[in-house]
Amino acid sequence: MNIQPDNAPLIGVLGGMGPLATVDLLQKIIEETPARRDQDHVPVVVWNVPQIPDRQQALAGKGESPLHLLLTAVRQLNRLPVSHIVIPCNTAHHWFDALATESDVPLIHIADATLESIVHLTRGPPPSWPKIGLIATQGTLNAGWYQRRFAEKSVITLEPSEQEMTTFFVPGCYAVKRGELPQGGALLEQLAQRLIDRGADRLVLACTEVPPALSAVKSSWLDISIDPTRALAQACVNIWLAHREARL
Amino acid sequence: MNIQPDNAPLIGVLGGMGPLATVDLLQKIIEETPARRDQDHVPVVVWNVPQIPDRQQALAGKGESPLHLLLTAVRQLNRLPVSHIVIPCNTAHHWFDALATESDVPLIHIADATLESIVHLTRGPPPSWPKIGLIATQGTLNAGWYQRRFAEKSVITLEPSEQEMTTFFVPGCYAVKRGELPQGGALLEQLAQRLIDRGADRLVLACTEVPPALSAVKSSWLDISIDPTRALAQACVNIWLAHREARL
Repeated sequence: MNIQPDNAPLIGVLGGMGPLATVDLLQKIIEETPARRDQDHVPVVVWNVPQIPDRQQALAGKGESPLHLLLTAVRQLNRLPVSHIVIPCNTAHHWFDALATESDVPLIHIADATLESIVHLTRGPPPSWPKIGLIATQGTLNAGWYQRRFAEKSVITLEPSEQEMTTFFVPGCYAVKRGELPQGGALLEQLAQRLIDRGADRLVLACTEVPPALSAVKSSWLDISIDPTRALAQACVNIWLAHREARL
Repeated sequence: MNIQPDNAPLIGVLGGMGPLATVDLLQKIIEETPARRDQDHVPVVVWNVPQIPDRQQALAGKGESPLHLLLTAVRQLNRLPVSHIVIPCNTAHHWFDALATESDVPLIHIADATLESIVHLTRGPPPSWPKIGLIATQGTLNAGWYQRRFAEKSVITLEPSEQEMTTFFVPGCYAVKRGELPQGGALLEQLAQRLIDRGADRLVLACTEVPPALSAVKSSWLDISIDPTRALAQACVNIWLAHREARL
């Protein structure tokens, strides 16, 4: 079913993990869209229901699996005339394959969108490609799908140590979840510095709490960082622009 | 149909007018919610499809009516288990009654939410209630639903004159739309001053261009102003908190 004119795309957002990360994606979709009036903007439907069980707790074996409510969200979005589904939460991509199987429409993987941004920013053949410092939850690091997708294109990934995760990443993210952005930013900036010191040329900020926290402390590392949420926004905008241009 | 536990509310947002105003509402819902974790936040579903025809053009008799696509949006939101619908666009409330009739679930009117904020801020019985200076588009002023809803609670509304609209409001808003916030802020501050001079105790900033412009010039009038988008966010949060507290 499609109620948009000309079979226009309609992006379904499986959000709420957390709600601020969802708003961040919507803001970035608007920023990335060349538009002169409201009607030029990307049509989006958002399921922003934050009662999905904690993803990190589930992966750590300490809590209920979110899969049941994630599948419900996919089914609800599929009741609307969506053309694609995106998930502005890195950790939730642990259940990506199960969700993609459930959906009638394609899901866009956040690591594929990020890799597209890296390739787009890089000049020259693979030897000149950057080493990527990957800042992500332990669940995302363990799952390994960023590293595997990057390796397929000969992009090397550097990861935080277990000690760096405990000291900087975990308390930094929980500070953001409480709304304490400057405190979170200060901790996450120290983690970025460690990865740069070990040879990272670029950072991938693969946890949605990280970019707003680094912005809150005006971190200079943002200049060499790739924000997967912005990459995902760009993927949504590209789908919309391809449709807009095809109509001209 | 309700897939949330305990018949929890689910706020449906009829957005896209424009998309940034929708993001502004979502951001303010998050800001107004006392929350310690993702799961404490308000569950929201958003229809953010900006291809709805221009509302001001339609009201000026110069363009297609948006009603058909507004009704479509209400029907789409009603396919999901929403409990209430809100519309983060003042001008779109021109079609409120038709949309409320179409919907299976109640719509919350932005002027009712604003009135609730005014009452909440006011101490004592009606004679002590404030006179409200209403800053809005000519279409919203002419429609008169802010004034009528306020009058039902004995709240008096002061409006800009036609000459003040031409001299301050229209060029102020167009400056904001061009991104010239300080210029827009200077003009809108003069309009605020006129309303205060005529006896307004508080201002209602019922046009989404006005709050960012007054912020850009650090206007002291913001302290006595009510932002209807924030009032609408508070109404959503109050529904959610009443449910959360009932469960405790």
